[in-house]
Amino acid sequence: MAVVLYPGSFDPVHNGHMEIVETASRLFDEVVVAAMRNPQKGEPLFTLAEREDMIREVFAHLDNVKVTMFSSLVVDLARDVGADFIVKGLRAVSDFESELQMAQMNHAISGVDTLFIPSASEHSFLASKLIREIARFGGDVGSMVPRAVSARLVGKYVKDAD
Amino acid sequence: MAVVLYPGSFDPVHNGHMEIVETASRLFDEVVVAAMRNPQKGEPLFTLAEREDMIREVFAHLDNVKVTMFSSLVVDLARDVGADFIVKGLRAVSDFESELQMAQMNHAISGVDTLFIPSASEHSFLASKLIREIARFGGDVGSMVPRAVSARLVGKYVKDAD
Amino acid sequence: MAVVLYPGSFDPVHNGHMEIVETASRLFDEVVVAAMRNPQKGEPLFTLAEREDMIREVFAHLDNVKVTMFSSLVVDLARDVGADFIVKGLRAVSDFESELQMAQMNHAISGVDTLFIPSASEHSFLASKLIREIARFGGDVGSMVPRAVSARLVGKYVKDAD
Amino acid sequence: MAVVLYPGSFDPVHNGHMEIVETASRLFDEVVVAAMRNPQKGEPLFTLAEREDMIREVFAHLDNVKVTMFSSLVVDLARDVGADFIVKGLRAVSDFESELQMAQMNHAISGVDTLFIPSASEHSFLASKLIREIARFGGDVGSMVPRAVSARLVGKYVKDAD
Amino acid sequence: MAVVLYPGSFDPVHNGHMEIVETASRLFDEVVVAAMRNPQKGEPLFTLAEREDMIREVFAHLDNVKVTMFSSLVVDLARDVGADFIVKGLRAVSDFESELQMAQMNHAISGVDTLFIPSASEHSFLASKLIREIARFGGDVGSMVPRAVSARLVGKYVKDAD
Amino acid sequence: MAVVLYPGSFDPVHNGHMEIVETASRLFDEVVVAAMRNPQKGEPLFTLAEREDMIREVFAHLDNVKVTMFSSLVVDLARDVGADFIVKGLRAVSDFESELQMAQMNHAISGVDTLFIPSASEHSFLASKLIREIARFGGDVGSMVPRAVSARLVGKYVKDAD
Repeated sequence: MAVVLYPGSFDPVHNGHMEIVETASRLFDEVVVAAMRNPQKGEPLFTLAEREDMIREVFAHLDNVKVTMFSSLVVDLARDVGADFIVKGLRAVSDFESELQMAQMNHAISGVDTLFIPSASEHSFLASKLIREIARFGGDVGSMVPRAVSARLVGKYVKDAD
Repeated sequence: MAVVLYPGSFDPVHNGHMEIVETASRLFDEVVVAAMRNPQKGEPLFTLAEREDMIREVFAHLDNVKVTMFSSLVVDLARDVGADFIVKGLRAVSDFESELQMAQMNHAISGVDTLFIPSASEHSFLASKLIREIARFGGDVGSMVPRAVSARLVGKYVKDAD
Repeated sequence: MAVVLYPGSFDPVHNGHMEIVETASRLFDEVVVAAMRNPQKGEPLFTLAEREDMIREVFAHLDNVKVTMFSSLVVDLARDVGADFIVKGLRAVSDFESELQMAQMNHAISGVDTLFIPSASEHSFLASKLIREIARFGGDVGSMVPRAVSARLVGKYVKDAD
Repeated sequence: MAVVLYPGSFDPVHNGHMEIVETASRLFDEVVVAAMRNPQKGEPLFTLAEREDMIREVFAHLDNVKVTMFSSLVVDLARDVGADFIVKGLRAVSDFESELQMAQMNHAISGVDTLFIPSASEHSFLASKLIREIARFGGDVGSMVPRAVSARLVGKYVKDAD
Repeated sequence: MAVVLYPGSFDPVHNGHMEIVETASRLFDEVVVAAMRNPQKGEPLFTLAEREDMIREVFAHLDNVKVTMFSSLVVDLARDVGADFIVKGLRAVSDFESELQMAQMNHAISGVDTLFIPSASEHSFLASKLIREIARFGGDVGSMVPRAVSARLVGKYVKDAD
Repeated sequence: MAVVLYPGSFDPVHNGHMEIVETASRLFDEVVVAAMRNPQKGEPLFTLAEREDMIREVFAHLDNVKVTMFSSLVVDLARDVGADFIVKGLRAVSDFESELQMAQMNHAISGVDTLFIPSASEHSFLASKLIREIARFGGDVGSMVPRAVSARLVGKYVKDAD
């Protein structure tokens, strides 16, 4: 029985994230998707509660996917939820180096392993930061995020523009 | 008749930018240089109007170069100015990945293509951020920026130091 | 009137190459696709004549695409065919560095420029070397190469296996 | 019950490989280590049978590790041994790009996934090619390979020197 | 008599920095370790004076290591302390590009050279930013920083949490 | 008194190598330039003796540069010539990873350190392999290699063409 933890900011969750979770859901017994409060990254677009809501809705069809929030060390969360290891997506070289560094530090302080799932190439260019940027200027991100997210992105910027 | 769009922050325009525009001006019929308002990058050193002024002055000798400002999606601007495609400079690997990502997202939302012009190697280390840093401490950036820019850089920091 | 040169080994031509040529054909007036004799790369799978045949067949629907072979410096060929510049595809970081190096050397010896067209991400993993490898072991490369190529790949390895 | 396939050349197996297998053995139910015949890489130092022998000896203490040889497509082997997915080690950026490319092509032709296990940083510089090079000149590779391998490396080069 | 300058933020100094200084101290006659005031990086965790204190304590056993603070151009500091060249550590590819860019700009404005000392691989994942992050959440960084630093890191976050 | 070893293939020595040696000659007391017999790289264009001749001629004006040949481990040579450390040039990211790997293995087997000297950006695209390629097709490499080398390159290919 393999339990894996998939942590991230998910501000917002996009099709590249969906693909990683669907792969993990197929390969492992249980996937815990954990949205993190990351004060380092500045003010998020969606609150942590909004992000959790969207993630729940988006993965509702996958029975072995659980959703949670956290504001602790990811390796402490891994132990709390009984995860055998952490999974992260890998898109590009720049991802790779910072993710490898984090994986090695996480292993050094806790013994918890990280495994990497490569993005399918058609999703490799997706990034929450660029999606927020496009949505802010009214661009169409419908092909990049689940329907539940695109509606809220539009609402967010319309509301903000009031 | 090929029209190309060259967007950027240009805070300030430097010799690496000049080389890209001169190459594009030689290869294509019209080059639109567009300075963008980028709230993501924090407070710029030069206002958008100052940057536009410097760009105009620096490219005044090139008849087929037009200068504009924008604060919209770059692909919307591309359509507005009738550009056939976007051109970007490429200096280094770290440039390459983020530029490739942006090019792919821009293509996905609009069908607009991006072509890359490699920097001549003697300019490959130039970056506006480092140039601002050197000028702030009184270092000599005369070999890195056009004369019109170096004078204003000195003025900017002298004024700020008052 | 912009004429561009697209040189390569094309052993064999694949869907990633097709995408670059189709983009270039749309953006420029004439595209010269040139298959090179490259003694450095060891014995090719397809002879230069076979490669030229396949390229002609694959791009027959594009009126402004011409096909040629060469065994000289690419910058000499560029001058011979009257190309305004060279275009190359860019898939990944490892591509980028060696292509940038070649572009800079070509510019240094001849003044000829090279522009880069990024691969659409769904083709970014395609490489002739891996395609030959898969075909050699009887794997299905039908989704990676044009129909004209997949038939000949099968024939090549069946014949070789006799 | 998760079965994973760990393919490679293993010419020879070194401490970086050992670490990946030990991690996989701890995280998954069964690990199939498969040494491949790779005519592309030129003449190997150790025959396939010698490599298989060394791998067997080196992993004899791990009950859930099986060893095999193959000269087919890795995705065909994955199906033959009932593997749920392939695992590969990741040391460095240059690894990452070629491994990602192979993972994406393997997924495209078969649907088989590849997961990446990062090397612990103290093993990140190990590579069979450099180990062979050092051993050939009589350098001490005792800290880089299991004891079973270092003895044979010495024997190989002493014998060759006769 | 070779004098080298090792500049950095050192917020805080960690085992990767220690290794670079120990190597430089062994290879050269005098090493000047210089902690910089870097307004670009936002509010530091430790004040410049605290960082200087920790660096002094950590390198007290090395007679040819001097410690200083600076808030000027690093090349001006190099001249002021009579350094023959600057040394920087290199961990990873992402380091390499930005460091190379800075080295080239520094050479362009002053003629001062920069030499790179590679991190031993067991330290290659260490980064002050991640160490601060782990300490902030109460993780154990004892294996990553000198004892003098880990005590103060704990104190810093306990005090901040009051 | 610092003695440094600069090993390489130098087939042939080019302006990028010259720049590294000139920098090392300025910074250190003695520089040993060592041309290696590398059976791994296939048949060289110039014999080891020819390469040594060209290196001697090219660095004749630098009193503290010595030239030698070797076909052993570079770390053994470092000890034989009394070098304090090895120096290598760094041009690009792809260089960096393989050089870092070699530096770490060399340190692991001998304790010998390697320091990296970045190429000035105007030489960053130079590579012996591409220079041989251009010369083979009659291209002009006069701006890339010392005069002593360009004459011999022409002679080499004219002779070969007989």
